[in-house]
Amino acid sequence: MTPRQERALAVARGLGADGVLAADAATVTWLTGLEIDVESGPSPFALAPLAVLTADGPPIVVASTDEADAVEAAGCLHEPYEGFTTGPLDPLAGAARALAAAADGRHLVAELGSLPAPLLGGLSLVDATGEFSAARSVKDADELERLRAALALCDVGQHEARARAEPGMTEIELWGLVRAAMEGAAGGRTPLLADLASGERTGSTGGPPGERVLAEGDLVLCDLVPRRHGYWGDSCVTFAVGAPAPTAREKYVRARDALTRGLDAIRPGLQADQLDELVRGDLRYPHHSGHGLGTSWHEEPRIVPGSETVLEAGMVLALEPGAYAAGEGVRVEQVVLVTEDGCELLSGYALDL
Amino acid sequence: MTPRQERALAVARGLGADGVLAADAATVTWLTGLEIDVESGPSPFALAPLAVLTADGPPIVVASTDEADAVEAAGCLHEPYEGFTTGPLDPLAGAARALAAAADGRHLVAELGSLPAPLLGGLSLVDATGEFSAARSVKDADELERLRAALALCDVGQHEARARAEPGMTEIELWGLVRAAMEGAAGGRTPLLADLASGERTGSTGGPPGERVLAEGDLVLCDLVPRRHGYWGDSCVTFAVGAPAPTAREKYVRARDALTRGLDAIRPGLQADQLDELVRGDLRYPHHSGHGLGTSWHEEPRIVPGSETVLEAGMVLALEPGAYAAGEGVRVEQVVLVTEDGCELLSGYALDL
Repeated sequence: MTPRQERALAVARGLGADGVLAADAATVTWLTGLEIDVESGPSPFALAPLAVLTADGPPIVVASTDEADAVEAAGCLHEPYEGFTTGPLDPLAGAARALAAAADGRHLVAELGSLPAPLLGGLSLVDATGEFSAARSVKDADELERLRAALALCDVGQHEARARAEPGMTEIELWGLVRAAMEGAAGGRTPLLADLASGERTGSTGGPPGERVLAEGDLVLCDLVPRRHGYWGDSCVTFAVGAPAPTAREKYVRARDALTRGLDAIRPGLQADQLDELVRGDLRYPHHSGHGLGTSWHEEPRIVPGSETVLEAGMVLALEPGAYAAGEGVRVEQVVLVTEDGCELLSGYALDL
Repeated sequence: MTPRQERALAVARGLGADGVLAADAATVTWLTGLEIDVESGPSPFALAPLAVLTADGPPIVVASTDEADAVEAAGCLHEPYEGFTTGPLDPLAGAARALAAAADGRHLVAELGSLPAPLLGGLSLVDATGEFSAARSVKDADELERLRAALALCDVGQHEARARAEPGMTEIELWGLVRAAMEGAAGGRTPLLADLASGERTGSTGGPPGERVLAEGDLVLCDLVPRRHGYWGDSCVTFAVGAPAPTAREKYVRARDALTRGLDAIRPGLQADQLDELVRGDLRYPHHSGHGLGTSWHEEPRIVPGSETVLEAGMVLALEPGAYAAGEGVRVEQVVLVTEDGCELLSGYALDL
């Protein structure tokens, strides 16, 4: 049993339950190691996998027959229902039967908000969404390996963006090169969130790549968030195509200083809102100062005003302060592992303007 | 009110309800025109949008504040809750309040399987999943425009795959070029399902691109399924890198003949299982002979054994027979619009081996 499976069972015991029903896709991956497809939206053939864990043995994955190999590779048991088929489609009924079999009458903690209503019949469940969220924030050693792999893809993408950007190219053309480099390095398809915005749009914090043509002196804000082996990396660089304007350099220095303040301060015991205040300073960015990373791309510890979450060794977090004004913005981001006496930088790309 | 909104309200009236609650993302897009992000998985900041429609006015979209511009652009009303925030996260509670306000005590038909359990409190709902599925299968004129745009992206991708494939290149390298061409043509990020498999893997119907290196004489099976303006295209070509083996040519002829039999037979009144039998012939492929396309990538009419669905003018369907054996397979696909007296070919790419 992994340390996180032990933590999940401790959550269940704490709420008087016999085990865990993971329903949020991020929690299912966290508990089982199973990667869940997110690029094609809801499927007519199957529901997203669920997982039941008790002290009796490995997690039981409730998933269609199409997931059999993946479930076995993850070292889990499989409670299947029919998936891809030429027959009539009713994955909901199949999943409900399989879930009832996996739950086997036990009282389980669950993430109720991620469960389709018709699955609940006959189950004995109590919500533990917040408890799972906290339990996921400290990473096990094998999770760190996966996070490092995702962050290595960030390094590839950020290097490519900087190396290939040139006047006359559109954002979407640059995006095509960046994505191809990252998927090439991964050796396969890679879920990828991103901002890739140039020129004036950097002033409003970013946005997806479009048909704007890069010009000499433009800023490019490039925020790449790839998933690798079920874990999400994160990275943001803002760089100039050619020579940046003096105003851009000024914003860069302010954002970079804010990031440095944060990295210097991170240590176990620091409260998230204190870190937010320290990083934010007199910058007025309309977003968090940072967030945790793992099987989801935004999780605890959220580095936001008012958060009483206390940093612990083993947490992984991205800091991403920005300096924005109308028509021009700079954001810089790095990801660190909280260690016993500070933090270890996990990001490996250049941060230069 | 669009014809499909009228059909949705007719479903509601037929079940004694006052209106419609669309919950499946594909149905929400169908009813409202709103595109729903599918590439980044569940969000910690918001649930997928829902939509309520009654005879009283435009659809009311239940979505986070982040969707305000998109909802307005779609000509819908907006019942919002807080989205992206630096404050505490509870989109489920926000969505539940907003949904209750939008439903306003009315009795609604809904897709219960797509609704998270905690949203149901206090609502008066009856399931109509099957009825929506049928109502979505006949396309309105503006839906056909969107489908044509998605299919034009298929043409771009298939052209690129054929033009760029060469010995020594990996599948994932070819994929990078194909995807970049499609996203370049779209002018922005484009959800995209795909098989891109070469060599032996074509024998087992396909799979995602990987690190296999293309060799002279290899088959490449390329099935591209992009979404454009909320509607999914579909396309599949199998082509040889250099000269194909005689066995590949034989399979190609059988698959192509099967496709031609289907295209020649399609007309209103034909039952889906009859079309399946005609296309399938003595080919033993382990999948459907075809399927409908729209706001989802696999919908009615499903062209499968045992389906009593009757083709109607205005349906859009993909036919995709294949001839597979161990280590070698060919699939060819085209998309058509069922017309009053036959069908109109919507796909525009070359089908050559």
